[in-house]
Amino acid sequence: MDTATTTCSAVDLSALLSSSSNSTSSLAAATFLCSQISNISNKLSDTTYAVDNTYLLFSAYLVFAMQLGFAMLCAGSVRAKNTMNIMLTNVLDAAAGAISYYLFGFAFAFGTPSNGFIGRHHSFFALSSYPERPGSDFSFFLYQWAFAIAAAGITSGSIAERTQFVAYLIYSTFLTGFVYPTVSHWFWSSDGWASASRSDNNLLFGSGAIDFAGSGVVHMVGGIAGLCGALVEGPRIGRFDRSGRSVALRGHSASLVVLGTFLLWFGWYGFNPGSFLTILKGYDKSRPYYGQWSAVGRTAVTTTLSGCTAALTTLFSKRLLAGHWNVIDVCNGLLGGFAAITSGCAVVEPWAAIVCGFVASWVLIGFNLLAKKLKYDDPLEAAQLHGGCGAWGLIFTGLFARKEYVNEIYSGDRPYGLFMGGGGKLLAAQIVQIIVIIGWVTVTMGPLFYGLHKMNLLRISAEDEMAGMDMTRHGGFAYAYNDEDDVSTKPWGHFAGRVEPTSRSSTPTPTLTV
Amino acid sequence: MDTATTTCSAVDLSALLSSSSNSTSSLAAATFLCSQISNISNKLSDTTYAVDNTYLLFSAYLVFAMQLGFAMLCAGSVRAKNTMNIMLTNVLDAAAGAISYYLFGFAFAFGTPSNGFIGRHHSFFALSSYPERPGSDFSFFLYQWAFAIAAAGITSGSIAERTQFVAYLIYSTFLTGFVYPTVSHWFWSSDGWASASRSDNNLLFGSGAIDFAGSGVVHMVGGIAGLCGALVEGPRIGRFDRSGRSVALRGHSASLVVLGTFLLWFGWYGFNPGSFLTILKGYDKSRPYYGQWSAVGRTAVTTTLSGCTAALTTLFSKRLLAGHWNVIDVCNGLLGGFAAITSGCAVVEPWAAIVCGFVASWVLIGFNLLAKKLKYDDPLEAAQLHGGCGAWGLIFTGLFARKEYVNEIYSGDRPYGLFMGGGGKLLAAQIVQIIVIIGWVTVTMGPLFYGLHKMNLLRISAEDEMAGMDMTRHGGFAYAYNDEDDVSTKPWGHFAGRVEPTSRSSTPTPTLTV
Amino acid sequence: MDTATTTCSAVDLSALLSSSSNSTSSLAAATFLCSQISNISNKLSDTTYAVDNTYLLFSAYLVFAMQLGFAMLCAGSVRAKNTMNIMLTNVLDAAAGAISYYLFGFAFAFGTPSNGFIGRHHSFFALSSYPERPGSDFSFFLYQWAFAIAAAGITSGSIAERTQFVAYLIYSTFLTGFVYPTVSHWFWSSDGWASASRSDNNLLFGSGAIDFAGSGVVHMVGGIAGLCGALVEGPRIGRFDRSGRSVALRGHSASLVVLGTFLLWFGWYGFNPGSFLTILKGYDKSRPYYGQWSAVGRTAVTTTLSGCTAALTTLFSKRLLAGHWNVIDVCNGLLGGFAAITSGCAVVEPWAAIVCGFVASWVLIGFNLLAKKLKYDDPLEAAQLHGGCGAWGLIFTGLFARKEYVNEIYSGDRPYGLFMGGGGKLLAAQIVQIIVIIGWVTVTMGPLFYGLHKMNLLRISAEDEMAGMDMTRHGGFAYAYNDEDDVSTKPWGHFAGRVEPTSRSSTPTPTLTV
Repeated sequence: MDTATTTCSAVDLSALLSSSSNSTSSLAAATFLCSQISNISNKLSDTTYAVDNTYLLFSAYLVFAMQLGFAMLCAGSVRAKNTMNIMLTNVLDAAAGAISYYLFGFAFAFGTPSNGFIGRHHSFFALSSYPERPGSDFSFFLYQWAFAIAAAGITSGSIAERTQFVAYLIYSTFLTGFVYPTVSHWFWSSDGWASASRSDNNLLFGSGAIDFAGSGVVHMVGGIAGLCGALVEGPRIGRFDRSGRSVALRGHSASLVVLGTFLLWFGWYGFNPGSFLTILKGYDKSRPYYGQWSAVGRTAVTTTLSGCTAALTTLFSKRLLAGHWNVIDVCNGLLGGFAAITSGCAVVEPWAAIVCGFVASWVLIGFNLLAKKLKYDDPLEAAQLHGGCGAWGLIFTGLFARKEYVNEIYSGDRPYGLFMGGGGKLLAAQIVQIIVIIGWVTVTMGPLFYGLHKMNLLRISAEDEMAGMDMTRHGGFAYAYNDEDDVSTKPWGHFAGRVEPTSRSSTPTPTLTV
Repeated sequence: MDTATTTCSAVDLSALLSSSSNSTSSLAAATFLCSQISNISNKLSDTTYAVDNTYLLFSAYLVFAMQLGFAMLCAGSVRAKNTMNIMLTNVLDAAAGAISYYLFGFAFAFGTPSNGFIGRHHSFFALSSYPERPGSDFSFFLYQWAFAIAAAGITSGSIAERTQFVAYLIYSTFLTGFVYPTVSHWFWSSDGWASASRSDNNLLFGSGAIDFAGSGVVHMVGGIAGLCGALVEGPRIGRFDRSGRSVALRGHSASLVVLGTFLLWFGWYGFNPGSFLTILKGYDKSRPYYGQWSAVGRTAVTTTLSGCTAALTTLFSKRLLAGHWNVIDVCNGLLGGFAAITSGCAVVEPWAAIVCGFVASWVLIGFNLLAKKLKYDDPLEAAQLHGGCGAWGLIFTGLFARKEYVNEIYSGDRPYGLFMGGGGKLLAAQIVQIIVIIGWVTVTMGPLFYGLHKMNLLRISAEDEMAGMDMTRHGGFAYAYNDEDDVSTKPWGHFAGRVEPTSRSSTPTPTLTV
Repeated sequence: MDTATTTCSAVDLSALLSSSSNSTSSLAAATFLCSQISNISNKLSDTTYAVDNTYLLFSAYLVFAMQLGFAMLCAGSVRAKNTMNIMLTNVLDAAAGAISYYLFGFAFAFGTPSNGFIGRHHSFFALSSYPERPGSDFSFFLYQWAFAIAAAGITSGSIAERTQFVAYLIYSTFLTGFVYPTVSHWFWSSDGWASASRSDNNLLFGSGAIDFAGSGVVHMVGGIAGLCGALVEGPRIGRFDRSGRSVALRGHSASLVVLGTFLLWFGWYGFNPGSFLTILKGYDKSRPYYGQWSAVGRTAVTTTLSGCTAALTTLFSKRLLAGHWNVIDVCNGLLGGFAAITSGCAVVEPWAAIVCGFVASWVLIGFNLLAKKLKYDDPLEAAQLHGGCGAWGLIFTGLFARKEYVNEIYSGDRPYGLFMGGGGKLLAAQIVQIIVIIGWVTVTMGPLFYGLHKMNLLRISAEDEMAGMDMTRHGGFAYAYNDEDDVSTKPWGHFAGRVEPTSRSSTPTPTLTV
């Protein structure tokens, strides 16, 4: 605590002031007062950095928790025989993503100055001379990494239960290290060509696209990449029967699905409100209690209301359409509401968030019907949910963004939502964003998946798919609840087939070998 | 970072001071100094809001995580055949609660000025003009919403495994939107009739009830509502055999129970210490290191010690009573200790928290014995745990609240704990709270449950109860661990019965249809 | 918000200054200015305490979440029949640890002044007069408690599936209450004999050991204690077959293992960056944006990179060694990388963290091979992972600690990493720490386990081990997924054997009784 440097002796200061017609003494008084003020000013600056970094770091931890959410959601949504496989992909999204984002992804995304298309400043590669300026500290890197791995996590859901692990490693690195960073540069970097926070005023349509926390940058990118992969791979065996009818391939654990959904909800409070990056900023001197902290709180509220409305809408819609109350569908509806509000969460009013969620639920239901009609198989509904609801979210922002909030968060007087009287410029920018993301992800990820397919590196064999990837590729089944699976219940385990060659988990379990 | 506005040039200031016998110049010096001080003061005010809102928002996120804890605890505590049902109710507590609390619940609870019974100020309905004053920002709404949904979550445990889903939707909305907000208004709003933080000094018994984080407002309300519901419904089929003996209907997964318990513990650090709402407040100029941050930390410690003592007491008690070491019972004991300390956590010393937890364990054991004797069936022990230990917690506060802490947290010189020499007034207020909550919840929720019962909307049919609600109402069983459940292992799934009508998860699984 | 006390009237101040040749008036002006500055200074001090305590408390909550991570990791790693047992030990680590750490463990560890070996100041026992000075508030107690229970959690993994519950209670209390606090006193207390943050300058080798977040103090202590226990107990039945070959005894749920691993990862962001204890501290007046908040963020980044590198290294290594992609091994590799970086996380550069993780992966693989060769059975690989990788982490810090970071975090000009040009003194201190921890833990825990063994209190009987501890000691099996386990599917449960004697979960399930 070195605030002790800010101490003031009234007697000493008085002596200086009382003789202040004497200029030496008045210089001493002034020097004293200024050093006090300067100390205070330094301490206030330190405080601001500490508060903002604390806020951003804990937000980053919450976003990271979404990776656990994805892992549990994915695990529960696939059949038991592929659980080890999909969980491994989720662990590796985070792990491989950390290395590639550290080495170059972060520099591509935020390495200013850039050429508008991709970042490239040397000091950002491998964080080589970092931090170098205010506003870009290690907490910012950690936060952006947690976002990057979310995109890859979305994609892995679309192509689950039928993809070779090697293909997974290749597309995941490419997506996290190049495709996603480029998009985030365009829309979020201070020199991205379509960013609403460009430091010059050369904004797309005088507005720039407002994708506050990434309905487009994260969710559409992950969803469209998943769409490309799933289209190239085709549906899982048994997903559509011989007469072409849709057959339910139910996930193996609803408890894991609910666990994952709630963890994603929890983490979304880091994702959306955290995207302010700072919290210590007043907005309005006449209302001192109103500032960025209020906007942060409002963002948490809009996020909550959109997701909850989408969940309720899905509950009743599916009750009418399918005849029962389905928790899995409610979870997906909830996540669709979150994916949609992610773009506009900071610039819309709470009531508008309810509109957002209501429509998001129907967007998801509509895309799911379409997917069934087109025999598109996406085990996690990831393309429909993150791609479809993400796109709706961008349009929603173009319609409902409120003037006051847009001006508070982005500098100057700007276009805002069409329905709020702000004209069509913001909406136009949002539509450009949708088109550009679909185009960019398709031309990068499409050929990649197609190339992997041509090289027979993409899809596993039909035998492996029937047996499940865990048995054939990942060292065994994920679960052993019953005693008969357990060698130790037989006297002293004289079962040669289970002797492990190198490690405790490296042999196939007897159910396969015998 | 606009602290740059606070800069001081000693030379300029010196010039002003040295000629300060001249009044124009002295005005300039004074103006300069005052604008410096005013800038600093504004920045300090912004800092305070940012720190307090950060603290409250992250506390709210932790409290929200308790909903996940409830979901997992409930799921693990019921039989596998009702897992989808109970998890859906937990998701809906949060979702439906968000809408109803946003529309009117929050206004009923905190819409000041009120008539003392219920809040009603228009600006709080649907957050229509919000934030309007200091101390009530969006973070406060989010925090209170997370509390409101906890109450409904408690109740759903009591009536689990036998309640129609429609009944659930009705009582849950009523509880979260009206019954709970009213109670929270009485005890927590600045104009509640029994609140210890009334802004005028017209306190109940000169004291007001101290229910710091809601042993009564949240836990008793949820528990008594559950008691009403479970009494109207009666026990589950098979819970007591033909000769009236109690039969264990064990939950299906102890792992989920432990997961849920730990998540509740984790979230309780938002629930109890977070109830301070702010953290940046000094208490004692002579001990600058001692302030609200210390009280917040102490609250986390008392919470921990009470729960842990209750867990240990339960461990050894049940070992003596039942003959084995039971993790499920230990988890319930732990939660009972938490529910009890929730009222007094901020105003008692750590050693007193140990007393609180010790007694809470025996309160829970006692009420469980009583429940068995009375053939009361509560699958989660929710009425015993949240109702019983919650009531004990209120009494405990009346006995052990420490003078110094009460005065620091509530303004002025006040009654405190009877055993601490503070007289019986606080205890009297606490007992009034217990009686009033039991009365209010019974006269509101009792008739509701009874009405639903009379309209045959409350309990499911015996056939449905035997088969499990997941199969008959929620689209299928929650788990599919075995291959034979999986159509894809049969060649290309030519199994007409599994073709889904509208969505991937909408058909009953074959175990029922064949 | 009492910043309102800091208001400044330019007119009033001007009047005082303009007549300041008059000494009475100048005293008034000076008094006014000084009271303003003093108010500001007090408010800044309050702010600093609030920010630092918020930071530390939420870090403590994250570290506490690791206990849930351990519980899930352990549960998933053992066979289903011992799940209740191991989860109970994890709950009790936290619960019993809270009481013993409150009563004396905390005083042993941090009760300054001490004799260098063990803390003993009376005000720390049962927090009897606390907080008494700056820098040691309740948040610090909570944070240290969360660390203490982690050590015991590690040990329980090593001796899982074969240890009597009574033995568990005894060693756990001894470890958390005495063995661990002593070690943390040596290396972390301001008067520990080998601490790098001693308040005098009497440092071991002029350096002190740098174990920033506890690769040695926590991980090695837990791991070596586990090693002692597992060596005394010997391997589980069936772990090595009659010809001495290693047999895989697979855990029962990979989903729980992945859940636990991710929760540990999440919590590690409290463990490592949180070990700074404070965040509001500037480092460098010339770079105001660079301060402790940057070091905290960097610590989160080094932690992430080490774990992720270790995970990837393990993935490819095990693919080569065992022929498949194994998520369980990847999880263990990840945790090994975290355990290793925990010592040096704050004082090394991000690139060095990659080196740390790469080597940690091979250390773990190597110790696992050695364990197999020596027929050492550790169900969680806890001794290899926490002991082995923890020791490597201490050496790593001695090699790669960077001068600038060491000087920022520890006062003065000091030895740093050998490979960074800082000489061998730090490395020597690190090696002393490794030796001392191995010695101390062995001479305390070794005799304890041996004594328990001699009194037949350590290992369960062979029959109990075959049947599983849950059935014989903990009231039943953890799971009931199938209907036939469920009495309620039989008409009205007329099954006398299931009638519960005292509570709902107290009877053995029929699979045993019939």
